[in-house]
Amino acid sequence: MAQPKKVVLAYSGGLDTSIILKWLQVQYGCEVVTFTADLGQGEELEPARKKAEMLGIKPENIFIEDLREEFVRDFVFPMFRANAQYEGLYLLGTSIARPLISKRLVEIAAETGADAVSHGATGKGNDQVRFELSAYALNPEIKVIAPWREWDIGSRTKLLEFAEAHQIPIAKDKRGEAPFSVDANLLHTSSEGKVLEDPAQEAPDYVYQRTVHPEDAPDEPEYIEIEFEKGDAVGINGERLSPATILTQLNEYGRKHGIGRLDLVEGRFVGMKSRGIYETPGGTILLDAHRGIESITMDRMAIHLKDELMPRYAELIYNGFWYSPEREMLQALIDKSQEYVTGTVRMKLYKGLARTVARWSEYSLYSEKQVTFEEDMGAYDQTDAQGFIALNGLRLRLLADRKRKHG
Amino acid sequence: MAQPKKVVLAYSGGLDTSIILKWLQVQYGCEVVTFTADLGQGEELEPARKKAEMLGIKPENIFIEDLREEFVRDFVFPMFRANAQYEGLYLLGTSIARPLISKRLVEIAAETGADAVSHGATGKGNDQVRFELSAYALNPEIKVIAPWREWDIGSRTKLLEFAEAHQIPIAKDKRGEAPFSVDANLLHTSSEGKVLEDPAQEAPDYVYQRTVHPEDAPDEPEYIEIEFEKGDAVGINGERLSPATILTQLNEYGRKHGIGRLDLVEGRFVGMKSRGIYETPGGTILLDAHRGIESITMDRMAIHLKDELMPRYAELIYNGFWYSPEREMLQALIDKSQEYVTGTVRMKLYKGLARTVARWSEYSLYSEKQVTFEEDMGAYDQTDAQGFIALNGLRLRLLADRKRKHG
Amino acid sequence: MAQPKKVVLAYSGGLDTSIILKWLQVQYGCEVVTFTADLGQGEELEPARKKAEMLGIKPENIFIEDLREEFVRDFVFPMFRANAQYEGLYLLGTSIARPLISKRLVEIAAETGADAVSHGATGKGNDQVRFELSAYALNPEIKVIAPWREWDIGSRTKLLEFAEAHQIPIAKDKRGEAPFSVDANLLHTSSEGKVLEDPAQEAPDYVYQRTVHPEDAPDEPEYIEIEFEKGDAVGINGERLSPATILTQLNEYGRKHGIGRLDLVEGRFVGMKSRGIYETPGGTILLDAHRGIESITMDRMAIHLKDELMPRYAELIYNGFWYSPEREMLQALIDKSQEYVTGTVRMKLYKGLARTVARWSEYSLYSEKQVTFEEDMGAYDQTDAQGFIALNGLRLRLLADRKRKHG
Amino acid sequence: MAQPKKVVLAYSGGLDTSIILKWLQVQYGCEVVTFTADLGQGEELEPARKKAEMLGIKPENIFIEDLREEFVRDFVFPMFRANAQYEGLYLLGTSIARPLISKRLVEIAAETGADAVSHGATGKGNDQVRFELSAYALNPEIKVIAPWREWDIGSRTKLLEFAEAHQIPIAKDKRGEAPFSVDANLLHTSSEGKVLEDPAQEAPDYVYQRTVHPEDAPDEPEYIEIEFEKGDAVGINGERLSPATILTQLNEYGRKHGIGRLDLVEGRFVGMKSRGIYETPGGTILLDAHRGIESITMDRMAIHLKDELMPRYAELIYNGFWYSPEREMLQALIDKSQEYVTGTVRMKLYKGLARTVARWSEYSLYSEKQVTFEEDMGAYDQTDAQGFIALNGLRLRLLADRKRKHG
Repeated sequence: MAQPKKVVLAYSGGLDTSIILKWLQVQYGCEVVTFTADLGQGEELEPARKKAEMLGIKPENIFIEDLREEFVRDFVFPMFRANAQYEGLYLLGTSIARPLISKRLVEIAAETGADAVSHGATGKGNDQVRFELSAYALNPEIKVIAPWREWDIGSRTKLLEFAEAHQIPIAKDKRGEAPFSVDANLLHTSSEGKVLEDPAQEAPDYVYQRTVHPEDAPDEPEYIEIEFEKGDAVGINGERLSPATILTQLNEYGRKHGIGRLDLVEGRFVGMKSRGIYETPGGTILLDAHRGIESITMDRMAIHLKDELMPRYAELIYNGFWYSPEREMLQALIDKSQEYVTGTVRMKLYKGLARTVARWSEYSLYSEKQVTFEEDMGAYDQTDAQGFIALNGLRLRLLADRKRKHG
Repeated sequence: MAQPKKVVLAYSGGLDTSIILKWLQVQYGCEVVTFTADLGQGEELEPARKKAEMLGIKPENIFIEDLREEFVRDFVFPMFRANAQYEGLYLLGTSIARPLISKRLVEIAAETGADAVSHGATGKGNDQVRFELSAYALNPEIKVIAPWREWDIGSRTKLLEFAEAHQIPIAKDKRGEAPFSVDANLLHTSSEGKVLEDPAQEAPDYVYQRTVHPEDAPDEPEYIEIEFEKGDAVGINGERLSPATILTQLNEYGRKHGIGRLDLVEGRFVGMKSRGIYETPGGTILLDAHRGIESITMDRMAIHLKDELMPRYAELIYNGFWYSPEREMLQALIDKSQEYVTGTVRMKLYKGLARTVARWSEYSLYSEKQVTFEEDMGAYDQTDAQGFIALNGLRLRLLADRKRKHG
Repeated sequence: MAQPKKVVLAYSGGLDTSIILKWLQVQYGCEVVTFTADLGQGEELEPARKKAEMLGIKPENIFIEDLREEFVRDFVFPMFRANAQYEGLYLLGTSIARPLISKRLVEIAAETGADAVSHGATGKGNDQVRFELSAYALNPEIKVIAPWREWDIGSRTKLLEFAEAHQIPIAKDKRGEAPFSVDANLLHTSSEGKVLEDPAQEAPDYVYQRTVHPEDAPDEPEYIEIEFEKGDAVGINGERLSPATILTQLNEYGRKHGIGRLDLVEGRFVGMKSRGIYETPGGTILLDAHRGIESITMDRMAIHLKDELMPRYAELIYNGFWYSPEREMLQALIDKSQEYVTGTVRMKLYKGLARTVARWSEYSLYSEKQVTFEEDMGAYDQTDAQGFIALNGLRLRLLADRKRKHG
Repeated sequence: MAQPKKVVLAYSGGLDTSIILKWLQVQYGCEVVTFTADLGQGEELEPARKKAEMLGIKPENIFIEDLREEFVRDFVFPMFRANAQYEGLYLLGTSIARPLISKRLVEIAAETGADAVSHGATGKGNDQVRFELSAYALNPEIKVIAPWREWDIGSRTKLLEFAEAHQIPIAKDKRGEAPFSVDANLLHTSSEGKVLEDPAQEAPDYVYQRTVHPEDAPDEPEYIEIEFEKGDAVGINGERLSPATILTQLNEYGRKHGIGRLDLVEGRFVGMKSRGIYETPGGTILLDAHRGIESITMDRMAIHLKDELMPRYAELIYNGFWYSPEREMLQALIDKSQEYVTGTVRMKLYKGLARTVARWSEYSLYSEKQVTFEEDMGAYDQTDAQGFIALNGLRLRLLADRKRKHG
């Protein structure tokens, strides 16, 4: 790694990224720009400014931004158009946030004349890959500094020693190690590590922080209606809302009813398996609702094609290839499919479960006339099925004939 | 349709297939063989024998068989190895039963010297396709008689008139029309038609017959452990059980906890969309458990490949192509992937929700040593990530470079 | 089929469609509009006008159009962006022409107030499916009349009798039956039937009409350069040309050098296999050239994704689903991939073979600096490969470890 | 890299691997075992024994093996069952040889008690990845030494100095640098680098070493017949032959007629694009013949499924994942499809072109009876097409109806 002159750090204001901040100053003697984003993680951002100032960052080098609307509008919603689930279950809450953070890191680097970016992701996880592939895809000459892969202060004890040696304040509850590590944004909260590392042990109740226990959720179901336009949610219960507001409200519904918990062992891009606890309250509701509105507004073969490509699309996002031509090609296909995905879905929320129970749309392809068991006045000619089956069966009969002859 | 001499009818003993039986005798003047199978639909079969006898079927032409073990072992379990879900949600409970019924129809035709088979599926649905494609794939010269596409007695009134004219007894509750139609077997119960035909209306509570309402389910969660071998469930809570027994027990767990309800609009193979209410209590538990055991015993890229092919596989089963070379090719791929899918999953059942909360296996690929945030004593060299990212990013940087030059 | 009032017929001016024309008048007593298109089949169109007039068609009901530019620009070129080959080999020359003909049939029906369209495709082939699916996709209420499926004059003798009875002139060489049937347009000529029906017999030389025998082609190779912009050919040897002109010139190059012959047994959508002789001189050159320019301007993973989806895309076109949402979704993905597919390919043509021998582009992703065996001055750090391999191999080592333990 | 004790080197006997051999002795002070395989590269192997002895290798540590039959039977033929072509064109001649070499390296390591293997592939290419992934997949604890990524004697001058310093004889023609580098085995010869590095320049004639120039090939075409059983070639012109003999003979036919030349720019797994000249004379004939026999013996939908999965399968082999579960899963699917791929193909070879002109099989699915334009005596009911089209078109009409209403 060539010596960086000025580096933009993804800075949370917490102990770890404060240590990284100081380490960058000490190790590389370079100017540091901090970038702190509100992606809906539920923490105050202003304390990060104070801490950055205290660590010697010039005011013009401190960037604090509310990216919640951009996050939902340009990343979460496009992904939900695909019904993306990694390994059948994971809603990609962490994965989808990384490209946006990298995008701003690279943009701020351009604005401030920095030649490098840095992040606090570890050397074993997917996040380092996501941050760095995104950065390279946006600026092929950017340098990336990944302190966790470089330094020799990786153990907890050494980190604390480094913090003390450099007058970095350590909150009392950070002295001991957390029993697991957490990542949060408007889409989800993920927890992993330590007490969760044995996948044969049920996760302790206290790991779940974003949703009430289904057992403690209301005893009465609640119904909500979600409006969609071209595949994106645009309103709840008749009120038109911005993307981030919609997700925030759905999160509140989900939290209250204990919806969106997932205990998963997944395959990381870097090669090993890991176990995570995910809470995606609003996203879980949104996924089912989106499938619900697609079910009446999208053609069958369009749905099937999209379903077949979804795992690939999810894998690309999981692996950090948001800014790749193949993701963009798939997105073009997916977006094309959403032209008429407009209408309303009624959901029942109860004790951890979100289920579509009704759906309607002026663009509906469902035709009561054609499906009815009753007389349909010529909408569908049943004798057509005869020829349909005959020709679909022709090749099967040829195969059967061969099998009979040759065994 | 050439005149059949002897026809094997899929006979339930109910009013509709009794009318079909008589109609075959009247219309074609041919000998009828009845075949009544126990696929776990939960009805007594012996009354069907009596009815058949009453309608003039010779005793040697009445076939009544318990196919539950074969159904689960050779059809349901192979399908669950694929985690098959049609249009993302439907567990294919009806679709997977048809090939087995057709197989026995064709076999009985061979045994009894019949040249035709017949079924009671309507001309608008998928079942006619499934029955007939399966029959053709097993005997290319078999004749198939589909009365619902042929006769002119399709209205309820005419059917009842025909029944009365031919002394077919009509149960009192069959005089009026059922508010919806039902298909059931050991895997699921599906309901559709009539009161369910407006997908914008929530299905009435009384439609659900196979599961308690989640609201009425026990207030305490229940835990069960499911053991798998090579992708198939082989035991529950430490007790080794036969395939049908396992599914029966899982159904009971699911029923009690209100698990496996689905309200779906789906695209039929014959072209229109329809709305169904599915209850798949045991299958819903089994699907999540199977994914759970796969998550620790299957390689990541094997999982992804299987996930990508699953929608195609599900579509084939839905469309009636069980006995097709492409389904068999996919099955070979899927079965190959299940070699080590052996171990135990712990599930939490509560108010409609079945969730994997723990899983273990002697074949586990999960390695605590490699994933830990702690020192791992060399199991994984973090600096490898540097080169991994660099080479994965190379093409993205070339693309970014081009974009910068050319916009 | 309800009685049509006015029908637009795809009319070639030949004997068969003249008989159909008359039959429509006789059978349905309806007004007939004729549509004759120049798709590059290499026949004069004006004789068709005279024949139509002679058969009593009003001048305002005779439509004769040169569609060659539209054919190549809006159908052939979009398809070639995908490198579409059906069953690995067939360039879809017949399939891709049908949607355009149907489009004009339906448009002319709207212009002339006709309620039906008609075509001369037989009941065993794919073309009937392509014509009719396209028509239905463009006008859901259009009636389609397929005389070959309806009439009882299908044998040659009866056809000639009908022609004589209705004063339809029969060219002398049409009295006997052709030894095979031909379809031609600017993209290809296909021959099938009769002398070609035994796939174990080599096709006689006289079947090939569009290309010289490779043995008779020039003994000297010829080089040409094809320029591409965004995936479409835009010029040859430095001269900018219209789409149809490009294909016409490439056809001439191909014809001269005996390029583009294919003897294929293929699976028809209607269920049986058939054998065809295809000559696609210009298209065969174009396909290889297009792959050539993609090879330096498209990202590797973008190429692979497109390659994986190509067979599906080709199948859709072959089966007649040009105007389907899934074809349009795939097209969106494909078109997105072609953004930078701009540059020049040098081809060597010789005795039946067209090979890319050189290619260049200002958008090239090929970097001599990175690939060279020589010192590359830091363009690529070879030690990165170490980590790349290590992490790609991690899962394989975990699997190997399991295998060693458990066999 | 921990210090290896004993290392098995893939040793060609040439200058480069002789230098590596010495370097391993010098650098690591470890015992070296040499492994030299005959994969049909067309070189004498015994000189390699002498050279190894001269460099101090103990006789019992020198392994020289003829692997040609194993290579074709267990690697080339299974791959050809898939019709594998990387990026649409490349027949994977280099890629498919690497797993076999790695397999023997790892096996010999086990036999001789070695703890490491080594190869002479450079740090920029795919071969290092293929060698090493294969080795790790077969022995998770094996050490791999890749001198080209480690040493500081990578330049030509330094290599020669090292050779001289260590008394390694240098053939006169190796003093200067080769104008391009070559890899050869029974399947193909590839050439790349140096004079080939500008893809805008046609490759000089002298690069082609394995095939005559098409211009110099015989002026008369030659016909051959290839017999297949279950997807593999088993004989030529009626003579039953071993796998390696078949490929050897096909190579001779191809060489003589100038068949199988390819000038390709391809995307490497390690991220950059490279240009290669491939000569695959026998393989090119085999590919077309295999497609030919599949065309009459495999079901249409089976062919299509295989075609869709082929690019993925080819990518896996190209990237070095032969010993991966996903390759094995795909192989299971592919092999399943080949059950009836038995019969004979007649090929015409002429001036660079190999074309199937006839094919027959007792398992043929082609039915002249069904495809004929003539009366078919009931083999196919044309009216069936009506219903087939109607139901396939139903969804398109629903979509058209919506479009008409809403635009």
